[in-house]
Amino acid sequence: MRITQQPTFKDIKSIHQAIQPFINKTPVLSSSSINQISGGTLFFKCENFQKVGAFKMRGAASATLALTQEELAKGVATHSSGNHAQAVALAAQKMGAKAYIVMPSNAPAIKRAATKGYGAEIITCESTLAARETTLKEVVAKTGATFLHPYNNYNVIAGQATAAKELIEEVGELDIVMAPVGGGGLMSGTAITTKALLPNAQLIGAEPELANDAYRSFTSGTMQYNTRVDTIADGLRTNLGEYTLAIILQNLDDIITVSEEEIIQAMRIIWERMKIIIEPSCAVPFAAVLQQPARFAGKRIGIILSGGNVDVENLPFRGLVTGD
Amino acid sequence: MRITQQPTFKDIKSIHQAIQPFINKTPVLSSSSINQISGGTLFFKCENFQKVGAFKMRGAASATLALTQEELAKGVATHSSGNHAQAVALAAQKMGAKAYIVMPSNAPAIKRAATKGYGAEIITCESTLAARETTLKEVVAKTGATFLHPYNNYNVIAGQATAAKELIEEVGELDIVMAPVGGGGLMSGTAITTKALLPNAQLIGAEPELANDAYRSFTSGTMQYNTRVDTIADGLRTNLGEYTLAIILQNLDDIITVSEEEIIQAMRIIWERMKIIIEPSCAVPFAAVLQQPARFAGKRIGIILSGGNVDVENLPFRGLVTGD
Repeated sequence: MRITQQPTFKDIKSIHQAIQPFINKTPVLSSSSINQISGGTLFFKCENFQKVGAFKMRGAASATLALTQEELAKGVATHSSGNHAQAVALAAQKMGAKAYIVMPSNAPAIKRAATKGYGAEIITCESTLAARETTLKEVVAKTGATFLHPYNNYNVIAGQATAAKELIEEVGELDIVMAPVGGGGLMSGTAITTKALLPNAQLIGAEPELANDAYRSFTSGTMQYNTRVDTIADGLRTNLGEYTLAIILQNLDDIITVSEEEIIQAMRIIWERMKIIIEPSCAVPFAAVLQQPARFAGKRIGIILSGGNVDVENLPFRGLVTGD
Repeated sequence: MRITQQPTFKDIKSIHQAIQPFINKTPVLSSSSINQISGGTLFFKCENFQKVGAFKMRGAASATLALTQEELAKGVATHSSGNHAQAVALAAQKMGAKAYIVMPSNAPAIKRAATKGYGAEIITCESTLAARETTLKEVVAKTGATFLHPYNNYNVIAGQATAAKELIEEVGELDIVMAPVGGGGLMSGTAITTKALLPNAQLIGAEPELANDAYRSFTSGTMQYNTRVDTIADGLRTNLGEYTLAIILQNLDDIITVSEEEIIQAMRIIWERMKIIIEPSCAVPFAAVLQQPARFAGKRIGIILSGGNVDVENLPFRGLVTGD
């Protein structure tokens, strides 16, 4: 099923059905300790337990299923800082197609290794959007593979939207639904689902200060660009796309930005209190909750935990001062 | 309810009912990636998600509930390398009693901090069983507090037995049930439950080579003692007790010992593939599965993941060679 315009919730329901064989129904976890710290009642949709360790499997499966047999025979290609790479590689492998993945040189080693493990061919480039796009164009020209954009693709957006669908179907009413914003695929999918199922819920995105293109785009109403790519939240270094910006402008109530230190602190609290492994990108919405306690106190809050792919040999915790 | 002889499964059912307000019903997780690596079908009972981050909350709640009002007024005391300490501290706090905790000087910082956070008074001693017992006796003499032994206590054993009860009630038939063996409270409780619910299942304990008192006691039929206390599996440094040894001798099919490197490797695989945080002690049964693949291939295996309290600033992964 190829989606050629902004997905409706009906599209999302069809995609959810279609991608079932390729995804896990991930658990929703809560923690009394986390609720006590934050003052809200938080429901974490654990996409760190998703196949490939991130929600990206939903979008990649959805986008790969949209291809014809002829297209599949030439393979798929993409650029990604990590999780989308693994997801496209695994989706392609499961559908018998070749995957060509352009990865920036600063992508975490564990993501590179996993992508290779799913049988993909990896092409390394510089860690700027321009370098990624140029390299990708060369690969597509050479191979005839279909480019699966990590987020500016309606099938990808509809796939990512299924995480919020499962979350809301499981926990019911929520006052606030939150997701991290990188390219905006997860946030825009989450927005469409939430507006359909919980029209009164607030939609709040969360973003690193160091990659705040979405915040600036949202407040100005026009596309703004990131100028640096060094936030620890490596999944959120990318810029919004045209499709995701439009959906975000139409639906979001706010975007909150957080510092690097706030991200690491939030990540550490989730690790230590919930005993689950999340990657830095994933901690950004919870960091936003901790930053503005009055705003979230007493609220029922759904948060998509986006992924759990970290390099355990290279963690950011050492020497950090915590409240313990 | 005070249990004064080896608990029956009927006792365990009563205790399970009684401790409900003090425990989480923890999830059972599986991973297709872990099954592929191990060759078996593994069901992990996630006591790392238990209150205080370990199964110990079950036994501590059970033992504290056994006290009279008069005993509670004088407080409770124990010695523990960490998780039992936190569990007794929290159980006492919830029942309005004072807790005195003797901790060895090499207990992980995170466990010490958490125990203090539950309002307990901490008394530090050398990391030998003798030092722990002497210090504890002094504390009890001074305060009149009731000593809650970490494992050689029938109420504690019956409490720990409820983890296997939940596991088996959720997943049904199993060919093999496994738990790590430290003092033997979890293993002996697991044994009684498993024999009652799945009389044909094999019961296999797993232990670090560096603290293999249970293995030597099991094979010789008489109590043997640990001579060193430096395994990375800090929860398994303790020796069997009289009660736990008897239950283990009566019920176990085998005890497998694993090296420090096997423990770290197994822990890393669970972290990376399952995205959950487990402590080294907790990885020991899975390390045993990886050590003897032929024995576990094709089997349905239940494993109690005992806890998730690690110091994230001091992890053992750096420089370790893995298959990735």
